[in-house]
Amino acid sequence: MLTKITSLSRLVGELKKLPGVGERTALRLAFHLLKSSQNLTALAEALMDVRGKVRPCSICFAITEEDPCSICNGNRDKGTICVVENSQDMMALERSNAYHGMYHVLEGAISPLAGVGPSNLRISELLHRVDLNDVNEVVIATNFSVEGEATALYLTKVLKPHGVRVTRLAHGIPLGSDIEFVDATTVQWALQGRNEL
Amino acid sequence: MLTKITSLSRLVGELKKLPGVGERTALRLAFHLLKSSQNLTALAEALMDVRGKVRPCSICFAITEEDPCSICNGNRDKGTICVVENSQDMMALERSNAYHGMYHVLEGAISPLAGVGPSNLRISELLHRVDLNDVNEVVIATNFSVEGEATALYLTKVLKPHGVRVTRLAHGIPLGSDIEFVDATTVQWALQGRNEL
Repeated sequence: MLTKITSLSRLVGELKKLPGVGERTALRLAFHLLKSSQNLTALAEALMDVRGKVRPCSICFAITEEDPCSICNGNRDKGTICVVENSQDMMALERSNAYHGMYHVLEGAISPLAGVGPSNLRISELLHRVDLNDVNEVVIATNFSVEGEATALYLTKVLKPHGVRVTRLAHGIPLGSDIEFVDATTVQWALQGRNEL
Repeated sequence: MLTKITSLSRLVGELKKLPGVGERTALRLAFHLLKSSQNLTALAEALMDVRGKVRPCSICFAITEEDPCSICNGNRDKGTICVVENSQDMMALERSNAYHGMYHVLEGAISPLAGVGPSNLRISELLHRVDLNDVNEVVIATNFSVEGEATALYLTKVLKPHGVRVTRLAHGIPLGSDIEFVDATTVQWALQGRNEL
C-alpha cells in the first residue's frame, strides 16, 4: 500500500535513519508532516539552511556559523582549554555556567573496535594550540566510557611533554541521587575524592 | 550557546514540532543529521518531494501520488465502502489483507471540543458516492474513541435513508491478550458478541 506512494516511502526511509526512529514512528512523523504543508516546507528549508551555514570552527572544531566561533572569538580565559568529544558535550558544559575558558572538540573518542585511532581525532591540532598559545591547563572532559577514558589516558600521555597541567572532570555522586542506588564504582570514586567540610 | 547558531536553533525548533519530540530529542536529531551532510540533504529533498507529489485522492481522499489512487483505480469490490478517519487507518486495514472493497477517508472525526462538525469531514462526498454507485454496504471503521463513536453514530443516521447496509468493525479481545488485564467494557463487548464454536 505505502510502497505505491514512492515519495512517502522515501520520506519514511529517510526518517528511519534518525536515532530512535523505527518504521512506526517514521510513518507517524511523515503523516504529521503531511498534515501541514507549511511545517513540511519549514523543516526542509531549516535542513538546507543548516547544511549551508553550519561548519566546524577552524580553531576549536565546535560547530558554528561564523569562523572562528563565538567562544574562540569571545572574551574568555585563553589559558585553559577544555577537551570534549563533541559539540553537544561542549554545550552541556556551557549550560553549567561554571567554565570560562576555551574548548577543543576532538570529534570522537579513541575506539579500536570502531577503527578510530588518535590520528582520526583532532589531537595534533590540540597539541599545536597548546604549543602556540600560552596554555596553562588542559581540562579533559571526554565521557566516562571505555572510549572516553582511553582517550583521556592517551591525551595525558601526549600532553605532559608539552609542559601543561592536565586535569580531568571530577567523579562522584550526581545531584539528587539516592546513594543506595548508585553503582559501587561511583561510590568508590566519591569516597576517594571526598572533601573537607 | 545554541542560540548563537541561528540555523541550528531554527532546525531544532522545526524538529520540536514533531509529535513526541522535545527539546533534547530535537537536539539529538539535529546533531545526528549534522554528522552526515548526505542524510541531511536526502531528508530535505524527500520532504520537498512529498510536498510536491502527495495529495488526496479525488474519490476516496486517501493520500496518493496518482489520482485516482491505486485502490479506487484497482480491481476491488466496488459495492463496499469502508469509512476511516485517516489514511493511516486505511493502511492498517490494508495490512490485515482481509478487506477487498473501497475506502473513504473522512479526514478526521466529529469533535465539538476541537470545533470539528460533520460539515468539516468528507461526509457529503461519501453520501454522493453511495448515491452515485451501486454500494451495498458501508463498513464504519472510525476509531473506538469518543469522537470515533460519535462519528459512527452520525454516519449511521445519515446513511440509513440512502438504503445501504451500515456495519461497524467488531469489538472484542485483541490477539495475545490476557483476559485478566483487559478492561471491563471490552470484556462486556466480547461476551455480547460471542460466537458459536
